[in-house]
Amino acid sequence: MANFGLENLILINPCNLKEDAYYQAMHAKYIVEKAVKNTYPNLDDFLKKEEIDFIVGSTGTPGGSYNLSRIPIKPEELGKSINLNKKIALIFGREGNGLYNEEIEMCDIIVSIPTEHSYPIMNISHAAAIIFYELFKNRNEFPVEGLEEATRIEKEYLLKDMEDIIKKLDIPEHKEKTGIKSFKNIINRAFITGREAHTLKGILRRILMKFE
Amino acid sequence: MANFGLENLILINPCNLKEDAYYQAMHAKYIVEKAVKNTYPNLDDFLKKEEIDFIVGSTGTPGGSYNLSRIPIKPEELGKSINLNKKIALIFGREGNGLYNEEIEMCDIIVSIPTEHSYPIMNISHAAAIIFYELFKNRNEFPVEGLEEATRIEKEYLLKDMEDIIKKLDIPEHKEKTGIKSFKNIINRAFITGREAHTLKGILRRILMKFE
Repeated sequence: MANFGLENLILINPCNLKEDAYYQAMHAKYIVEKAVKNTYPNLDDFLKKEEIDFIVGSTGTPGGSYNLSRIPIKPEELGKSINLNKKIALIFGREGNGLYNEEIEMCDIIVSIPTEHSYPIMNISHAAAIIFYELFKNRNEFPVEGLEEATRIEKEYLLKDMEDIIKKLDIPEHKEKTGIKSFKNIINRAFITGREAHTLKGILRRILMKFE
Repeated sequence: MANFGLENLILINPCNLKEDAYYQAMHAKYIVEKAVKNTYPNLDDFLKKEEIDFIVGSTGTPGGSYNLSRIPIKPEELGKSINLNKKIALIFGREGNGLYNEEIEMCDIIVSIPTEHSYPIMNISHAAAIIFYELFKNRNEFPVEGLEEATRIEKEYLLKDMEDIIKKLDIPEHKEKTGIKSFKNIINRAFITGREAHTLKGILRRILMKFE
């Protein structure tokens, strides 16, 4: 939860947490400490007392019987479509048994992680990590300085220099075109950073100078 | 791993696994049982003995210092572009310390999960679950003819030519190194195809000829 900027853990009818629960939480003990003060006896009570805008239930890959309430969306679809400005509850069921049918009925939507057929039952903390990750993914970009992707203009200058070089190589026109196109594809697919663009540009400039 | 159809777990210089390791594996004990028979003393040994086509390292969100080898792609980008028909190694580092720099240098590409600034260190099993999930998600969409990724050898020839060019540009040695490294990163991150490698190589050869 802390990895993905979440902090409101609610426990419904929990057992007594032992020391291990705090230890496993590592630097996110504060989430567990807050959670034990904020429990509800059942899901219905929780949903009534908190004012939840949207309820997402999670299930393992749905079983054989076709059940309209259980038609799930994928975590990716959830991440792309959910409005994170609303008050959302993500409901995870019991380890092993998951959510009961009457609990699933209370949900606005069901999310399910696509898995291998032969082993669809996931550890609940792994399932939670994947769903949190998909929600977080659509929120932020990598924020490390120097890793910003090159701007469109930086990439255009780079491609222009490469084009100038290729045009001086006396190769057939169709090969010129293929070369320019390949270089452009590679630059775009590599999500080249501003600094890399600068480095490459320096080299291309030097190559051009050698040609004169 | 079993949730996402993976079964080859390799342990590098592991401690002795206790009963708990088998218990935690639930219905995937067979993966752990196989893994303890298949260990290596260090990463280098593993990469040499198995014939790995492509090495993916994972790191936490990169720290403050800018390091060319550590420019990561996101799990989603990895999942979309990697060719799962190749023999791929996903390398996860030590809990806490992650991969050492010399181990990162051995990787063709680095993947990093976007997280909250305030708590970027993930539990390794959660990080692994997210990366496996992204690879699984895109599993059935890849093998388009003509789009096969360039082989390791094709990429090495390409890098060798680029290196030869850069060494003829009379630039300071540290800039030579940065240039070579940047080019290598871009080629790897772009998952360059065999056909693109061939095209680029033709151009680099022509540039070298012009220098003579």
